[in-house]
Amino acid sequence: MPLKYRSLPELRRDIDTCNLELLSLVIKRAKLAISALQFKDKVTDDVFDPERQLEMLATLVKANQGPFSDDTIVSIFRGIFQHILDLMSQERKTTLKVHRKQGDPDQIYEINGHKIGDQPIYIAGPCAIESEEQLDNVAKVLRQHGVIFLRGGAFKPRSSPYAFQGMGERGLKVLRDVAHRYGMVSVTEVMDPRSVEMVAIYADVLQVGTRNMYNYPLLRELGKIDKPVLLKRGFSATLDEFLFAAEYIVAGGNYQVILCERGIRTFTKETRYTLDISSVPLLRKMTGCPVIVDVSHAAGRTDILEPLVAAAFAVGAKGVMLEVHPCPPVARSDADQQLTPEEFVKLKDNIHSYIMGNLPSD
Amino acid sequence: MPLKYRSLPELRRDIDTCNLELLSLVIKRAKLAISALQFKDKVTDDVFDPERQLEMLATLVKANQGPFSDDTIVSIFRGIFQHILDLMSQERKTTLKVHRKQGDPDQIYEINGHKIGDQPIYIAGPCAIESEEQLDNVAKVLRQHGVIFLRGGAFKPRSSPYAFQGMGERGLKVLRDVAHRYGMVSVTEVMDPRSVEMVAIYADVLQVGTRNMYNYPLLRELGKIDKPVLLKRGFSATLDEFLFAAEYIVAGGNYQVILCERGIRTFTKETRYTLDISSVPLLRKMTGCPVIVDVSHAAGRTDILEPLVAAAFAVGAKGVMLEVHPCPPVARSDADQQLTPEEFVKLKDNIHSYIMGNLPSD
Amino acid sequence: MPLKYRSLPELRRDIDTCNLELLSLVIKRAKLAISALQFKDKVTDDVFDPERQLEMLATLVKANQGPFSDDTIVSIFRGIFQHILDLMSQERKTTLKVHRKQGDPDQIYEINGHKIGDQPIYIAGPCAIESEEQLDNVAKVLRQHGVIFLRGGAFKPRSSPYAFQGMGERGLKVLRDVAHRYGMVSVTEVMDPRSVEMVAIYADVLQVGTRNMYNYPLLRELGKIDKPVLLKRGFSATLDEFLFAAEYIVAGGNYQVILCERGIRTFTKETRYTLDISSVPLLRKMTGCPVIVDVSHAAGRTDILEPLVAAAFAVGAKGVMLEVHPCPPVARSDADQQLTPEEFVKLKDNIHSYIMGNLPSD
Amino acid sequence: MPLKYRSLPELRRDIDTCNLELLSLVIKRAKLAISALQFKDKVTDDVFDPERQLEMLATLVKANQGPFSDDTIVSIFRGIFQHILDLMSQERKTTLKVHRKQGDPDQIYEINGHKIGDQPIYIAGPCAIESEEQLDNVAKVLRQHGVIFLRGGAFKPRSSPYAFQGMGERGLKVLRDVAHRYGMVSVTEVMDPRSVEMVAIYADVLQVGTRNMYNYPLLRELGKIDKPVLLKRGFSATLDEFLFAAEYIVAGGNYQVILCERGIRTFTKETRYTLDISSVPLLRKMTGCPVIVDVSHAAGRTDILEPLVAAAFAVGAKGVMLEVHPCPPVARSDADQQLTPEEFVKLKDNIHSYIMGNLPSD
Repeated sequence: MPLKYRSLPELRRDIDTCNLELLSLVIKRAKLAISALQFKDKVTDDVFDPERQLEMLATLVKANQGPFSDDTIVSIFRGIFQHILDLMSQERKTTLKVHRKQGDPDQIYEINGHKIGDQPIYIAGPCAIESEEQLDNVAKVLRQHGVIFLRGGAFKPRSSPYAFQGMGERGLKVLRDVAHRYGMVSVTEVMDPRSVEMVAIYADVLQVGTRNMYNYPLLRELGKIDKPVLLKRGFSATLDEFLFAAEYIVAGGNYQVILCERGIRTFTKETRYTLDISSVPLLRKMTGCPVIVDVSHAAGRTDILEPLVAAAFAVGAKGVMLEVHPCPPVARSDADQQLTPEEFVKLKDNIHSYIMGNLPSD
Repeated sequence: MPLKYRSLPELRRDIDTCNLELLSLVIKRAKLAISALQFKDKVTDDVFDPERQLEMLATLVKANQGPFSDDTIVSIFRGIFQHILDLMSQERKTTLKVHRKQGDPDQIYEINGHKIGDQPIYIAGPCAIESEEQLDNVAKVLRQHGVIFLRGGAFKPRSSPYAFQGMGERGLKVLRDVAHRYGMVSVTEVMDPRSVEMVAIYADVLQVGTRNMYNYPLLRELGKIDKPVLLKRGFSATLDEFLFAAEYIVAGGNYQVILCERGIRTFTKETRYTLDISSVPLLRKMTGCPVIVDVSHAAGRTDILEPLVAAAFAVGAKGVMLEVHPCPPVARSDADQQLTPEEFVKLKDNIHSYIMGNLPSD
Repeated sequence: MPLKYRSLPELRRDIDTCNLELLSLVIKRAKLAISALQFKDKVTDDVFDPERQLEMLATLVKANQGPFSDDTIVSIFRGIFQHILDLMSQERKTTLKVHRKQGDPDQIYEINGHKIGDQPIYIAGPCAIESEEQLDNVAKVLRQHGVIFLRGGAFKPRSSPYAFQGMGERGLKVLRDVAHRYGMVSVTEVMDPRSVEMVAIYADVLQVGTRNMYNYPLLRELGKIDKPVLLKRGFSATLDEFLFAAEYIVAGGNYQVILCERGIRTFTKETRYTLDISSVPLLRKMTGCPVIVDVSHAAGRTDILEPLVAAAFAVGAKGVMLEVHPCPPVARSDADQQLTPEEFVKLKDNIHSYIMGNLPSD
Repeated sequence: MPLKYRSLPELRRDIDTCNLELLSLVIKRAKLAISALQFKDKVTDDVFDPERQLEMLATLVKANQGPFSDDTIVSIFRGIFQHILDLMSQERKTTLKVHRKQGDPDQIYEINGHKIGDQPIYIAGPCAIESEEQLDNVAKVLRQHGVIFLRGGAFKPRSSPYAFQGMGERGLKVLRDVAHRYGMVSVTEVMDPRSVEMVAIYADVLQVGTRNMYNYPLLRELGKIDKPVLLKRGFSATLDEFLFAAEYIVAGGNYQVILCERGIRTFTKETRYTLDISSVPLLRKMTGCPVIVDVSHAAGRTDILEPLVAAAFAVGAKGVMLEVHPCPPVARSDADQQLTPEEFVKLKDNIHSYIMGNLPSD
């Protein structure tokens, strides 16, 4: 089947000519494909129309006179079509709302006069709200040391149906009251699409936990509110899936999404999850939404939080999230990974000199 | 610090005596711990009371006079306490509803006169219901070849908010009508706690997809209905997390849970997910609920479905789930992994002789 | 940039014509590429010549007059070139020795009058050879029950340099003597390229452990001997990497490779590794070499070995490998996953009826 | 079985007393166990003697008079024994050479007057040495910009036996000559235990690649030389396995091991491997050996190298390793992940201000 050539240069000349012919044809073909987007609904139609592709493949197979087998022809053209589909998706993606367009600046959201997405911030507080006293104890210290964003869970997704599930609406009230008392911004999780409206009454930022990243009815509901949503990456989600989850919210009209890397599930044993530090710069290239890092859940232990916070800031995260509890050993959840307020303050005060001390002298 | 001994036998005698003393003490201690269960609410209280443990550890540290450091004492006793907590949890777990108790038989559920959990079954049908004609075409062939359980999605959880999301309630009606026409049992997914009631009107078995295994509000809602729930394993869930998810349903009063292994996310590239075949015998040891295997999603390709079905039956799965579509290349979702009705029939008719042909002659 | 069309049918006509033009050009281009294989050394040259590709891309970019950006042109042609490279690799792969060619039968190797690759077999024996008595005890029972292949390690790759590393050459002699005594075929691991010649004197089948699948100097050395090599899949190896490792042996002239799936490293906790059962049919499609399954290492526990053996046979494995030790609790390695000879015999005698009992009645 | 108590406080008093009795007994038992270390060879004997443990369990079972079942007793004592074994291993580990002992400083190695382990360094150069010109081009620029450590592969472990395997000894000579010319320290990989002596003649630092981390004969051979060994983490190795691999080298008498995190294999698709940034602080806690990070292999792409270098320094890595090639698109291996010398220089010159720009203002 292969053609015979006397010399490689001779062959290469023919290949070059053929490449140029292909160039014009492919350009022509891609332009035709993109023209087809005019006849598609941007939101409801898939770019890919399998029936139409089948039809085109059938036509090509019918025209095939060898020497390649029909299977080979189908394989080659599936390849080319895929490439063209990618171009079409890209064409459309540039119209996806969550993607960063050429030259787009970082998104900055303002909440009660405070900003997220601008200067890097700390988000801290207990895993679960257990009482007003507990939350107040933490919040007071945090605020004294310049932390504005106060986290605390009132609804806790727990593996066991019999484990402590959070204080519910009572906890939300505690969170609101304590946050108001100290002029802080409150962040709390919502798990149920039916609770979104209620949680939005009490909290400033609504959080979607890692177990709910694929919970599309919940995400759609969050697309209807007018408060920032802190969306955690599913612990086995690809970045594409993560961005699509964000798009569910944005598609509904709520543009204020904060993306949070919080560790992925791998074979490693030394940490609870594996912090995927590369995801931060990758996400920042893909979207203008602020990207933050939850170091506490990633590590599942407190003895390496200082370096992980350092890493998160170094790669360009717009914030870090940490669990802080007045007495971690008696915490009703995540006892091993929570810092005391004092440990947190020490970490925060120390982080600049910690990083500086690690850099090459240059 | 270590004691000096002249000979190993001499040392071992002392160790044996010490072991026996430990035996009586540990038994005594464990009995005391289990007694404490009397003072706990079985459903709302954690077995683990961290505040009390902290108190006990403090007492022990105070009593410690060396030669071990306080840290070592805390570490040793955390270990012993954990062991005792495990015993307590086990004690309680035997009261967990989803766990198989000594001598418990396999659960068998009856649906419209058909059984699941008894003789192994096939559950087949298209990924998504696309039209009455499409579903009827498939169902007719399946029924002719002895398949009773008809699957088809009316609500599809798709990564992209703009991809085809299913026909919704219109699809449910199609499913109900076609299933009735051929005397089949219908299986379909539900994603939103607010839709459970509605889906339960049309479908015989309600399915929870892999992305919703951790969706606890949905699971709780499914605990209130009186129809079997087919619960898919999250693609990165441990078996403990899987059983706890089932317990969310059972805790609500719905005892009819079917567990479905459907592949886990790993580093492999050749299949869409990695079928975790070991999970079937492990789950069967842990629970009496029927365990089935979705081979189509695990493989993400059709050319190895026959061996995977063979493996699923061989390890004791009570059913296999397969995607069957009248024309896979034009399917609106999962085009690569659906069989035509003819391919499915061939696989089913062939499976006995396929397996027999592979066994050692012996 | 996109062309304007009045109607979709009109656009589609133009697309169809363009497709057909592309068809002839792509065929022409692919044939030119395959012609280039004539000027390449099959063994030493990569199919991919990056310098040449760069040159071609430069020519194309130079010819590009829009409307696509240069980057887009490069991206499109990288795609097409990749597709053509795939075709070239496939063309060459059909000349790769380990790949199954159209119509190739299963490979069958004969060792001392016994066959592997034909009827499924059992390979059994202790993890490590600890003494002649230990091995004899096991071998006697195995042989009485029809097992021909006796495994036992004399060189053990252990994580710790201070753990028991095997009896070395003394163990090899024990293995040879016991295998001869009962007319069995011996299987043992080799770790060091410098030991291959020596191990080949004593053993009938040389095994490469999972930790050494990427040990290319060792594989090359095994390409020089005339005995079958049992190659275990690296516990994080893709199937392509696995086959390439086999090709290292075959490229050296030793065609007798046995491939062994033994579990991959994933996030799961309940088993030591995750048995990748799908790899068996996938490998069998790709190569004619016998594929076997080491169920003991995959599971790391004995209570699910019966179903895993059943699964391995059901999917078409040509053998299963099991660790059998006269007294597992005192084993010097892998104590948790070894069967007693009695347990093994029971499993083997039972496997047919176990599988039959699990199949649908049909 | 559980004892009846009137009140929780009463029960708790009894539990407290029982805890204290357990305390004395456990201390006594642990001391007896540690005494047994006297009768064991530190290097050749396992801490765990399964035969002896079996004997002890048998004695305990014999003494058991209920109410716990024998199985429960075995389970409880296996737990306690494991805890004591951990204590014994820890006791012994403190005598392991690679572990950091309380108060141990960071290891610093001196090579030709240059230090590693002290101020963070850059190790840079092409993936594979392709010619003297290629290496000289890179080295000249690197040296001008303050880089001392020059990497380049002469032996390349490639998946395919037919891919470019490196220039071999000829490449080593090129590396030595170029390194001498510019007063640089040369770093190169060795794959075969039979080549260690020869590679050590030419190179200053010998590297073990990720595929050879478990190659114990190679590691043992490296234990005999007197040059630093740069040991890369296996891409699916736990940190314990990684340290044990280092111990193979150190056990042979070569104390100069450099540990290199280079990414682990996970489900993610966006990067070639997942950089496990947490491993750096974890390893630094466990050992005094310098820990460095190979960002090029982890990422497999060049567009996120700047943030990854920033992260590596921020967490305390003592060096970063980068692939630099005069013309990456024509590189014979790893074309996608190599920087040009100019890109590298820009990254290096920029890294301080990059990190500073990302830190919170505070």
